[in-house]
Amino acid sequence: MQTELSKKLGVEHAIFGFTPFPAVAAAISRAGGFGVLGAVRYTAPDDLKRDLDWIEGHVEGMPYGLDVVMPAKKVEGVTEADVEAMIPQGHRQFIRDTLAKYGVPELAEGEASGWRITGWMEQVARTQLDVAFDYPIKLLANALGSPPADVVERAHDRGVLVAALAGSARHAVKHKEGGIDIVVAQGYEAGGHTGEIASMVLTPEVVEAVDPLPVLAAGGIGSGQQVAAALSLGAQGVWLGSIWLTTTEAELPSPRLIQKLLAAGSGDTVRSRALTGKPARQLRTEWTDAWDDTNGPGTLPMPLQGLLVADAVSRIQKYEVEPLLGTPVGQIVGRMNSERSVQAVFDDLTRGFERAVDRINRIAGRSGQ
Amino acid sequence: MQTELSKKLGVEHAIFGFTPFPAVAAAISRAGGFGVLGAVRYTAPDDLKRDLDWIEGHVEGMPYGLDVVMPAKKVEGVTEADVEAMIPQGHRQFIRDTLAKYGVPELAEGEASGWRITGWMEQVARTQLDVAFDYPIKLLANALGSPPADVVERAHDRGVLVAALAGSARHAVKHKEGGIDIVVAQGYEAGGHTGEIASMVLTPEVVEAVDPLPVLAAGGIGSGQQVAAALSLGAQGVWLGSIWLTTTEAELPSPRLIQKLLAAGSGDTVRSRALTGKPARQLRTEWTDAWDDTNGPGTLPMPLQGLLVADAVSRIQKYEVEPLLGTPVGQIVGRMNSERSVQAVFDDLTRGFERAVDRINRIAGRSGQ
Repeated sequence: MQTELSKKLGVEHAIFGFTPFPAVAAAISRAGGFGVLGAVRYTAPDDLKRDLDWIEGHVEGMPYGLDVVMPAKKVEGVTEADVEAMIPQGHRQFIRDTLAKYGVPELAEGEASGWRITGWMEQVARTQLDVAFDYPIKLLANALGSPPADVVERAHDRGVLVAALAGSARHAVKHKEGGIDIVVAQGYEAGGHTGEIASMVLTPEVVEAVDPLPVLAAGGIGSGQQVAAALSLGAQGVWLGSIWLTTTEAELPSPRLIQKLLAAGSGDTVRSRALTGKPARQLRTEWTDAWDDTNGPGTLPMPLQGLLVADAVSRIQKYEVEPLLGTPVGQIVGRMNSERSVQAVFDDLTRGFERAVDRINRIAGRSGQ
Repeated sequence: MQTELSKKLGVEHAIFGFTPFPAVAAAISRAGGFGVLGAVRYTAPDDLKRDLDWIEGHVEGMPYGLDVVMPAKKVEGVTEADVEAMIPQGHRQFIRDTLAKYGVPELAEGEASGWRITGWMEQVARTQLDVAFDYPIKLLANALGSPPADVVERAHDRGVLVAALAGSARHAVKHKEGGIDIVVAQGYEAGGHTGEIASMVLTPEVVEAVDPLPVLAAGGIGSGQQVAAALSLGAQGVWLGSIWLTTTEAELPSPRLIQKLLAAGSGDTVRSRALTGKPARQLRTEWTDAWDDTNGPGTLPMPLQGLLVADAVSRIQKYEVEPLLGTPVGQIVGRMNSERSVQAVFDDLTRGFERAVDRINRIAGRSGQ
């Protein structure tokens, strides 16, 4: 499964896998795809260094990349404490009340929350980059708009391609103007931050809008048929995130969350502002319902909401409080029905792609395929 | 572009076109697709008879079908007046206030509204069927759940295939259990009534759920690339509605509405209950905004909402009140940028499909394509 972009990056298949887990990223690259490690959870540079070392030791020389969350607009001199001070007390009380209702225990003294705003702040992302540029990464992706111009330049100086996510053709054009090399067209059905335009419509719009830049299709892809569909829409590759969450290499901390993912259908996600303040697709839970309820206090804008709920989300995850337990995931969760290795998922994708090409050739009357 | 289903129906291309306009339906069938006439607007049997006669005279012997709106659950002895009586006065006042704010003139005495509840009631749909079964229709589609068992039987006795729309695999399985022959998987991005699951995810789920029944993919399709994508997902054909609205054969009464459609981007639609009481994708207008506003009275359940707004929608359309003027349409409206003949749209679809197949073969390394 070769496109200009996959050839340029030196991978066998134009399948890009985004994951917060080093073992998954390395396995994707070993399988012939392109693993991209999500860096948002690394607040300490040494942790990122440790995991990039690990990837280097396990990727067998295959290329991989890093995904950061870096706002294009710089906010000078704002600390986490400044942001904390902007959160209304009523919202804090709503969280206390909601957690109490479900009997969620407190975190022990000194237990850090897993979700911190810090990973979302530019100074942290820059620290991550200082670490990452010491490694032979081939791709730097940004999940939050175009990265700042100096970061793009720094990447290009090192021969690193820069990718950015877009939920509309308009955003994609801005990326192109910002010197980005690759646009990831993130459809409505995708996990995490998404717009309202579905992949079927978004992908070709973005391809046309940023031509000749390569586009990766993201959202709703978890089978070889869907890979074939996305490539039919003009993409030069696919960008998969959710599908790896239930692989055996993934390190989701909560067994109960894994069971929820395996049991969920495609209709069991919701596009909610509960997690970050911007619409992000995730498992629908009583937690998202509480935030989306018109009788609740409503969500705060990014980055306040993320900071507000950080400890609560950690508590829910640590104590595996079933009705509240969720995670960002796309509508493809409906076909994540068993724990499989990354290699098994990958084989399924590539074989399914070949079968889909066979079928489309039969439909097109091109025999001998 | 041949599938088992297109062969069975005797059409050259597995492209199904849904339209309220007889001239469009006939042109789709003449072009080698399968035209399906939407019957919901025919409250008088003679009008339907006249238009089916017209189609018979213009279809050059090619097959075509009819789409009705027939609830599976029968409501005995309920008249339009009974339903009218259930509408709260506050909602009527909201409409009067909103129309007054925009200076929308009244309809003249005796001017019927274009949108009536009657087309949505079973007795009317049955009258439509009594007319339609006198014609050599090859397909009967139902937009509102499975048709009643006796209707399915009556169709089968005449060799007419029965199709039903579904927005989830669960609904699709119900159709299969109801003896339906074809499921139309209607994705989130589609115009009109839609669920929340996007085509990329919905199509293969429905294909798997109702196997071996054939599935048509609907939602987001308006180019040959998108046809190839939908067929890659396992569909036996595509079902297109929106794309025909701006063809030269379409008879939209409002030139200003046509201009709005041509100018709209993929982000200019909304899934709103404003039109019928169930979520239906349509152009976003100040009318849909007013209904979706949390400070408004909220929409009523189907069929009350449709009856409530019928005259208002007619007035808005007749007087072409720009900010309020809308229509059901899918996200594909973003690529409806010029008025073209049905044949030109069709050529674009089939040529684009061939190019998409060429490209996917190159990506798959199958040379000589």
